[in-house]
Amino acid sequence: MKLAILGAGAVGRSVADLAGEYGHDVVALADSKSAVADDAGIDVERALERKAGGEPVGSGAPEDVFETDYDALVEATPTTLDDAKPGFSHARRALEADRHVVLANKGPVAERYDELRALESDSAGSVRFEATVGGAIPVLSTIEDETPQAVTAVRGVLNGTANFILTRMAAEGLDYEHVLAEAQDLGVAEADPTFDVDGTDAALKFVILSNVLADGGFSLSDAAVDGIQNVPGSALDLAAEDGRTIRLIGEATREGVRVGPRLVPENGALAVSGTRNIVQIETRHAGSLHSSGRGAGGPETATAVLSDVGRLE
Amino acid sequence: MKLAILGAGAVGRSVADLAGEYGHDVVALADSKSAVADDAGIDVERALERKAGGEPVGSGAPEDVFETDYDALVEATPTTLDDAKPGFSHARRALEADRHVVLANKGPVAERYDELRALESDSAGSVRFEATVGGAIPVLSTIEDETPQAVTAVRGVLNGTANFILTRMAAEGLDYEHVLAEAQDLGVAEADPTFDVDGTDAALKFVILSNVLADGGFSLSDAAVDGIQNVPGSALDLAAEDGRTIRLIGEATREGVRVGPRLVPENGALAVSGTRNIVQIETRHAGSLHSSGRGAGGPETATAVLSDVGRLE
Repeated sequence: MKLAILGAGAVGRSVADLAGEYGHDVVALADSKSAVADDAGIDVERALERKAGGEPVGSGAPEDVFETDYDALVEATPTTLDDAKPGFSHARRALEADRHVVLANKGPVAERYDELRALESDSAGSVRFEATVGGAIPVLSTIEDETPQAVTAVRGVLNGTANFILTRMAAEGLDYEHVLAEAQDLGVAEADPTFDVDGTDAALKFVILSNVLADGGFSLSDAAVDGIQNVPGSALDLAAEDGRTIRLIGEATREGVRVGPRLVPENGALAVSGTRNIVQIETRHAGSLHSSGRGAGGPETATAVLSDVGRLE
Repeated sequence: MKLAILGAGAVGRSVADLAGEYGHDVVALADSKSAVADDAGIDVERALERKAGGEPVGSGAPEDVFETDYDALVEATPTTLDDAKPGFSHARRALEADRHVVLANKGPVAERYDELRALESDSAGSVRFEATVGGAIPVLSTIEDETPQAVTAVRGVLNGTANFILTRMAAEGLDYEHVLAEAQDLGVAEADPTFDVDGTDAALKFVILSNVLADGGFSLSDAAVDGIQNVPGSALDLAAEDGRTIRLIGEATREGVRVGPRLVPENGALAVSGTRNIVQIETRHAGSLHSSGRGAGGPETATAVLSDVGRLE
């Protein structure tokens, strides 16, 4: 397939880098200010070198990507809330041109799911968004294969930054501020870590899951969300005495979405370590399926995007 | 899709039972001696009642299933080794008639993988076999989505009977013979448990995985296999003193297949409990994906069959 990639952050760059290995061509790559486009396939290596050198990815305008002969638009621009623009607009433009959209951007599927599905019904193109939930872990494709009706709930840890912070607080007996600073030094937490530590990032993912289970109806404002900023080190010590620890756990059902710090058994499945993510998919006929893996990262998320492209064919 | 189901054991019966919920019709169901067939769809409930009452499933002959207008043959007859007949012959007949084959029977894909793929290339039908590895756990579809070339190894616990026995031996300090008897009473181990306890069942699954990774070339005779019959209780006690336990672990790579009892960290991912299975899929770009769930059971395995049917469309 010919891919037009919008967004040249870690995910967009990794998709461009790995596309060839998965048998696809990159006909366009755009960052926030520029684009390089070529229906015969762009020179990915050169484009990535320019980006690595701090230069624009190309000499065209970002909108140029829509002029190419792409089969699937990869939307990997930063997640935005509420109207989810420009991500939603990009998806709409592709669907109105009867092209496929593969999202790594959570905004459109968390905040405007119903509208997106309506655009999809009127389009020859399909929308896929594995990369929006759980990075490399095949969460949505598993639910799709089980059929959403056969899944009753999805529970788990879907934010690696918060999980890393809680893991380190428990392991070292350090307080939140200290571990947050460590996480930022390591690049595990961003300079502005708000969405990771206040539960918003996790909540967006569980909202997407509830939308899949219920075929729409949810947005971020429907989620009951608590973050980890107020978890004191003493709570973790107390939990440990009881063979438990604390993790930022989310739950998505057809009825609603909740995210918050919860006590979990120390050696249980939900007590994943570090930046790892885990989902427990509860099914009607097959019990509980657990999937864990790397929930974030350029290459990791790119594999989810490329899995989706594979499923389009 | 119209399904012709060969085999009325736990898996075949569950596929028949759940097919309607997944939107498919059952046009035939055969046990070892009889069959019921109807292009308009059989009365599944009546057929299952007859079976539950110890009667033949129908008044026709098993071969009748091939006369129906089926889209996909579900091969759920007992796994046989070496020439993998009659399972292999059933699959061939369907492919030669340009129909799809969904296998729950491990024989054809473990013992005659290359021949099966050759028949598939010459057919308008496809072969899928998620149900042959790990029951409800989506192992093969995950590898397929990642693309096999991006997967370097698959490791894990894929036999619930052996895992149950080792879990109980470790938990209760009982010896093998005692726990095996308990497992048989519970129906977790069969009257003849040989293939579960000698590692053959697990080995067949890892051989299938190596065939997927390497696109063929392996059969059961290529696997290095040790079972659990000689694991003494004392080995488990010793392991526990070191924070470890013993599980029957298999590994599949492009180079080969090995199955045997291994020491694993007591609280680690591979130390699943009871009859649960787990696979760790090692990937080039996305680190290690872990998936665990129920590895066996009628409904559990049926969901894997029906996932495959969904992927055919």
